[in-house]
Amino acid sequence: METFFTFLEKRVADCSSLLCVGLDPHAADLPRPTAEAAREFCLDLVRQTAPYAAAFKPNAAFFEQFGAEGWTALKQVIDAVQEQSQRLGSRIPVILDAKRGDIASTAEAYARSAFTDLGAHAITLSPYLGKDSIAPFLADPEKGVFLLCKTSNPGAADLQDLPVNGTGEPLYVAVARLAQSWNSGDNIGLVVGATQPAAMARVRQVAPELWFLAPGIGAQGGDLETALMSGRRRDGKGLLFPVSRGIAREADPARAAARLRDRIIDIQYQLTKSGH
Amino acid sequence: METFFTFLEKRVADCSSLLCVGLDPHAADLPRPTAEAAREFCLDLVRQTAPYAAAFKPNAAFFEQFGAEGWTALKQVIDAVQEQSQRLGSRIPVILDAKRGDIASTAEAYARSAFTDLGAHAITLSPYLGKDSIAPFLADPEKGVFLLCKTSNPGAADLQDLPVNGTGEPLYVAVARLAQSWNSGDNIGLVVGATQPAAMARVRQVAPELWFLAPGIGAQGGDLETALMSGRRRDGKGLLFPVSRGIAREADPARAAARLRDRIIDIQYQLTKSGH
Repeated sequence: METFFTFLEKRVADCSSLLCVGLDPHAADLPRPTAEAAREFCLDLVRQTAPYAAAFKPNAAFFEQFGAEGWTALKQVIDAVQEQSQRLGSRIPVILDAKRGDIASTAEAYARSAFTDLGAHAITLSPYLGKDSIAPFLADPEKGVFLLCKTSNPGAADLQDLPVNGTGEPLYVAVARLAQSWNSGDNIGLVVGATQPAAMARVRQVAPELWFLAPGIGAQGGDLETALMSGRRRDGKGLLFPVSRGIAREADPARAAARLRDRIIDIQYQLTKSGH
Repeated sequence: METFFTFLEKRVADCSSLLCVGLDPHAADLPRPTAEAAREFCLDLVRQTAPYAAAFKPNAAFFEQFGAEGWTALKQVIDAVQEQSQRLGSRIPVILDAKRGDIASTAEAYARSAFTDLGAHAITLSPYLGKDSIAPFLADPEKGVFLLCKTSNPGAADLQDLPVNGTGEPLYVAVARLAQSWNSGDNIGLVVGATQPAAMARVRQVAPELWFLAPGIGAQGGDLETALMSGRRRDGKGLLFPVSRGIAREADPARAAARLRDRIIDIQYQLTKSGH
């Protein structure tokens, strides 16, 4: 059986990419604020960028805002990724960015929704309710979880930076330790913003093997080179860079995705050559 | 303009109730695992229990598991609460139990989904991403937020009990302090499990004015009397008890809801009489 991260690593190897294409149909980017426009926006992005995408990451909020029709659009977008996977002969994981988190019996219903109904392969979750709120999503090792650890927004400091356990270690490091200890099925990763490289380096120290979903490249100002230096694993992988507006708002999204993919490869090559 | 908590307190006065009827269509409780069955299950509960409900609390997970049709059912259930409000001549708040939490621009889309599309009056949110992830839900004081603080599941201890700030104070108390300081619009409450009365009393100390949504009565074993002693405000209110299976699984849900409502009144009366 293939675990979620074996599946992701296979795709990363197939397309030589650490780029995760974000599917965020912001109302401001659509010709009309409708579910149909959101779907077409995403289907176009999927078609254009699939060859360069290690993964796709639709954000549930931008579909939910269109109600039941938005939910149907989300499912169609996820289906479209499967079609591209078949066309390319290489399966592309879909990470549902939903940031759910509820007690065990309710978490089971969310897991069914994400994995069975929508057909996503992984989901982002909040760690605030602890292990039993995560467990239902880990039951099938083929399905993965990215736990919020250190996010890229300003308010992240309110809780995530609080020193815990009397050691001065911030809460996000404690979350990383927990995730590392819970990862018996090779299907837990972390969300660690690329905007704070020092924090990313600390998380890498306590979670040497985990994959990080590292938002903040592009629109939020994170620097790719610094992020790769701070957060990549010893094998040079372990980082996935979600980019949405930085691709979707370009005149040629396919070219923007190809360039980002290639820039990551270049930086990895330079870092390896210089012995980092 | 009426704030969310003015609205809630008016309803509490109208029906002399601190009972919040949970609308959780667990697949196990439905004759068939379909969105239609989930809707009928909830519509029946709403019709039967509306006179005794200070609020209704549908949990998004149990609707999302049925995809787009589930989303439509959720909207119909919320609409049905509005119909009961008109019938009774007293508006009943709907608290969408969704436990969302995302960065600001995405939080705006979730707020639109919950308040504008679905028509809910309040929502449960995770505090892990900090104030800017909460702010979009607070923009309209007529809409409310219940922030997860100390939940009733075993895994709650993993993060919520961690001592922070070198004072030994647990994280959930720090969250309560933050919520108290953010409540400038009279529209933030807290989720504080009724299963741990000592924790509830600590939260009440640092958040003397906030409303608590206090799950855990009934199925999870929490005791009403202990919870009221530990968590009620000086005015005897400030606690809302969500109960779902404890009402839905009874042969006569209307009678079960009426009894719970009355038991809460009795305990409040006894506590006041004995000078608590």
